[in-house]
Amino acid sequence: MQRFVNDPDYIVEDMVKGYVKAHKDLIKRSEANDRVVQYVNAPVEGKVGLVTGGGSGHEPAFLGYVGKNMMDAVAVGEIFSSPSAQAFYDAFMSVDSGKGVACLFGNYAGDNMNVKMAIRKAKKQGVTVKYVVATDDVASSPKETKEKRHGIAGGVFMWKIGGAKAALGGTLDEVIDVAQKTVDNTRSICVGLSPCAIPAVGHPNFQIEDGKMEFGIGHHGEPGINVQDLKPAKDIARQMAKAVIDDMEPEEGSEVAVLMSGLGATPVMELYVLYDEVEEYLKEQGLSVYKVFIGDYVTSLDMNGAALTVLKLDDELKELLDYEAKSPGIEV
Amino acid sequence: MQRFVNDPDYIVEDMVKGYVKAHKDLIKRSEANDRVVQYVNAPVEGKVGLVTGGGSGHEPAFLGYVGKNMMDAVAVGEIFSSPSAQAFYDAFMSVDSGKGVACLFGNYAGDNMNVKMAIRKAKKQGVTVKYVVATDDVASSPKETKEKRHGIAGGVFMWKIGGAKAALGGTLDEVIDVAQKTVDNTRSICVGLSPCAIPAVGHPNFQIEDGKMEFGIGHHGEPGINVQDLKPAKDIARQMAKAVIDDMEPEEGSEVAVLMSGLGATPVMELYVLYDEVEEYLKEQGLSVYKVFIGDYVTSLDMNGAALTVLKLDDELKELLDYEAKSPGIEV
Repeated sequence: MQRFVNDPDYIVEDMVKGYVKAHKDLIKRSEANDRVVQYVNAPVEGKVGLVTGGGSGHEPAFLGYVGKNMMDAVAVGEIFSSPSAQAFYDAFMSVDSGKGVACLFGNYAGDNMNVKMAIRKAKKQGVTVKYVVATDDVASSPKETKEKRHGIAGGVFMWKIGGAKAALGGTLDEVIDVAQKTVDNTRSICVGLSPCAIPAVGHPNFQIEDGKMEFGIGHHGEPGINVQDLKPAKDIARQMAKAVIDDMEPEEGSEVAVLMSGLGATPVMELYVLYDEVEEYLKEQGLSVYKVFIGDYVTSLDMNGAALTVLKLDDELKELLDYEAKSPGIEV
Repeated sequence: MQRFVNDPDYIVEDMVKGYVKAHKDLIKRSEANDRVVQYVNAPVEGKVGLVTGGGSGHEPAFLGYVGKNMMDAVAVGEIFSSPSAQAFYDAFMSVDSGKGVACLFGNYAGDNMNVKMAIRKAKKQGVTVKYVVATDDVASSPKETKEKRHGIAGGVFMWKIGGAKAALGGTLDEVIDVAQKTVDNTRSICVGLSPCAIPAVGHPNFQIEDGKMEFGIGHHGEPGINVQDLKPAKDIARQMAKAVIDDMEPEEGSEVAVLMSGLGATPVMELYVLYDEVEEYLKEQGLSVYKVFIGDYVTSLDMNGAALTVLKLDDELKELLDYEAKSPGIEV
């Protein structure tokens, strides 16, 4: 196992320690809970509190999206595991300034269960928490049951836009509404070229043969739509963009934001090779690209692969996407 | 070869096309030369022009450091190969506004030769170009011959600080002096856990056995100081930090900036695991960490490994490091 790790059972602890040291101007550990990281100025007086959370191994997600005009706190889970209900609860309580809390997370069974338990517990303490789940992964369920889809890199847009709305003084319902609109307008797809290994396991739980690629792979290696022969980058890029746009069905002339995330072991250069053809495809569909993010935004440990996310914009979403923000994972 | 590529012989072209599409608000191709990318507002009237350049495969270096208050143009080479003298020359000419040009690049034989040829050619056209070479890689030559050392991730600090000085109205000599001071105050070291493969070759030119690590490996796989058993991350981090600090010999109480760059296939999480112990070591040496950058800053195709760079600061360097800048590779 060629990786930078101490005891694999404590990799999350070591990673969190490194994060709060490196970004101490923006984030700190919660005093209430070791598995909660919060914005240094949280709770922000008069502002809706924003919380996210999820399993580790997706860095900079989730803790890298805590910061100025972004999330106020994050519940940190073990590798590929939901944070505990207690961690979500402590995150809620650490950011509430009386205006309520919005919990913006990705759609996975464990996270759903724990968030809902935490919400009930917070309610008993008089703290109102509402939530939005990202369901951007078009490969994870058919369109007819799109509420079952998982959340992947599209969460970044939900956090950025929800964060801006709260920073601009939005009420809890307004923050929830615009985060939900963002989710409704976002679609993602992944392609995997090599598997990932959980450090404490030491070897991948699945394989991708040389010369093959897994189209629609999930962020934990969930089986995708199919296994195909590895194709030239142009063909992969077009296939990814087509999957997203066919599902989204944006009106011709729409403006979109595009995020191309590496999955952990993907060379930066290759994300740009993919993007080159993605933009060509989008233009052919009559879409115009308003803003682009390329790099490691939501990863899957040491997986080699890429996630394409497209967000259909309107004037409100553009303004919120462009609003100043500063976090380890994104800066605008 | 599990990677996102079309024809491997044209990967640089495809990557540059993707870069200028994705970041069209900041950069564009030069009309004079397909292998020159420039800041959209270059030449900036009244400002010293700033140029860098080098082989591709190190993205976001070098073209990702062109932008606002950063480099004004970059000469783009093929994979791991110097750009041509003509590309450097065209880059110089595209950014000169009459105040002269500073060329800030990494110390490799091909780049040195081509930059100097381009400088002579520019001189005949009445354009003054001065240069600074980054020599931050402590593993590439002993201290007695430190002028022979290669430039690796430390270039990022040279570009950031040189860019700020020029933006603040510094003369050519002032920009050169502060870039040289930055180089003099910067040290880096790499550790490789797996090799990289040039796409057109299709397989690595060297190997790192499982269970081993190459301490001091170069950014093109140049042999390092030695091959060691792979150690826990804490031990690797301390060994990296010690190599850098022993060579730098900073006064106790010094403030430093730290950059921890992945080499292309390194999971984000693991860079933080390393950083956690790097900061511990620096504190033990009586140093305080002023600013931290973690992510993919200077990579080596698909190499799994990490580069640690430390810059010793003074008031001038702190001010320039903090000065507003926006480029695809760094934003402050």
